[in-house]
Amino acid sequence: MIITIIGTGLIGGSLALSLKKNGYASKIIGVDASEQHLHQAKEIGIIDEMASLAVAVGQSNLVIIAVPVNIAPTILLQVLDVTTNQVVFDVGSTKAAICSIAAQHPNSAQFVATHPMWGTEFSGPQAATSNAFSGKAAVICASANTNTQALEKVQEIYTSLGMHLIYMNANEHDVHVAYISHISHITSFALANTVLEKEKEGDAIFELASAGFESTVRLAKSNASTWMPILRENKENVLDVLNEHISQLKKFKSCLEKDNYTYLTELIENANTIRKVLDR
Amino acid sequence: MIITIIGTGLIGGSLALSLKKNGYASKIIGVDASEQHLHQAKEIGIIDEMASLAVAVGQSNLVIIAVPVNIAPTILLQVLDVTTNQVVFDVGSTKAAICSIAAQHPNSAQFVATHPMWGTEFSGPQAATSNAFSGKAAVICASANTNTQALEKVQEIYTSLGMHLIYMNANEHDVHVAYISHISHITSFALANTVLEKEKEGDAIFELASAGFESTVRLAKSNASTWMPILRENKENVLDVLNEHISQLKKFKSCLEKDNYTYLTELIENANTIRKVLDR
Repeated sequence: MIITIIGTGLIGGSLALSLKKNGYASKIIGVDASEQHLHQAKEIGIIDEMASLAVAVGQSNLVIIAVPVNIAPTILLQVLDVTTNQVVFDVGSTKAAICSIAAQHPNSAQFVATHPMWGTEFSGPQAATSNAFSGKAAVICASANTNTQALEKVQEIYTSLGMHLIYMNANEHDVHVAYISHISHITSFALANTVLEKEKEGDAIFELASAGFESTVRLAKSNASTWMPILRENKENVLDVLNEHISQLKKFKSCLEKDNYTYLTELIENANTIRKVLDR
Repeated sequence: MIITIIGTGLIGGSLALSLKKNGYASKIIGVDASEQHLHQAKEIGIIDEMASLAVAVGQSNLVIIAVPVNIAPTILLQVLDVTTNQVVFDVGSTKAAICSIAAQHPNSAQFVATHPMWGTEFSGPQAATSNAFSGKAAVICASANTNTQALEKVQEIYTSLGMHLIYMNANEHDVHVAYISHISHITSFALANTVLEKEKEGDAIFELASAGFESTVRLAKSNASTWMPILRENKENVLDVLNEHISQLKKFKSCLEKDNYTYLTELIENANTIRKVLDR
């Protein structure tokens, strides 16, 4: 199968490497706004060829859109404009906007909105890996309009990568990822800024930073061109979660201010029940 | 060298295993308020014998106090009461209280306050590991009163474990760990509570939770009997950091509410500079 990957960074690049590795892709054509990324992707072996969007789509059986969520809807419309019988799917972290825009296109039946639940704090072709997706969840936001064959093709691809499929609508997806992913990024960004603000001299954090700190602040390395648009697109849900998170932090603050250590213990013990999620 | 470990949990147990492995300890005597932990520690091979505090100290060259920070000062005084020429050190996550209490004891010269910068979200003897400390920092809060030989012995031990030594006074230590460790725990606890509060049905987080979420919320599994006392002991510093952290989170909130995405990008890019700490 000939696959076009639009966006040859962390997610697109990792899908390309994985689908070449498992034999699903016979050829990968790369499309990217960044010449540098295209050349890196070619060098690393993520893509076999590079082409313009229209030429690449015309030569492919399948098109994967893996660009930042603010650009994805525009790219999708360009792809659907030249789509005949190709299956098209995106992999973005927000789903409401792209699903709503896709629905208005005459070729929308060829499109499946998806979100493979994997990522790292790194970006670009050089961050791509061929072992990323196995065992993870892939969310599929199918619409009533989606072509059955297109849906089955996308199911087949994610299953071939060892992923399990979860179905929800775009709005449900966007609420859940606000909790599961977007707020984690904001807390990491804010934690990094807290430490950087207060530990101006820097030496102490260089010396003392241990595994716990690295773990909570790791996502703070995630790049702005990916994450600003995600937070903007999912603004309403993210604000809901952020308000709840700030109010949870204020409970800890209030316990310390009022020396209420019984309640502080309860808050910690309640947090411990997250084990049932993490150790499943 | 015969070593008494008081508190055979994660840190005490890991020190015991590591010091047996590298040949530093010829025998480890365990002291623990929990009979169950003592028996587990014996079974696992963390300790060779168990004894009462006074008997254990009397038979040892070195005493390591690895109990929760609210109990450590009381234990330290009991140990110093029966100390002749033994070297005594603690490994607690706060240092001001124990240093101040130690200073009033006639045998305080035998005591060195320390904090090896390693831990996990697990606790108890079964969480102990023999490969924990190498490459990490050990903070030493020596006082003017500390016996030189005692200090050298403690330096030798941490160096034998492959740790690098950092010297600061107790108050400096407590400020820095509020940033590097204590706030990370609070944000993880609060993040867990946020998700648990909102995702009552639970299924979605079970299915969707990915590496980013697990990373930021991992510390939320840390137990209350260790962490409530740490947060209480270091209350003033923790409140300073927590206030700063809440104000950093409010900047993200304000950006989203006011659609100020230029500033949101700046906040994320500033957070990205934490790389210089993490990737050192």
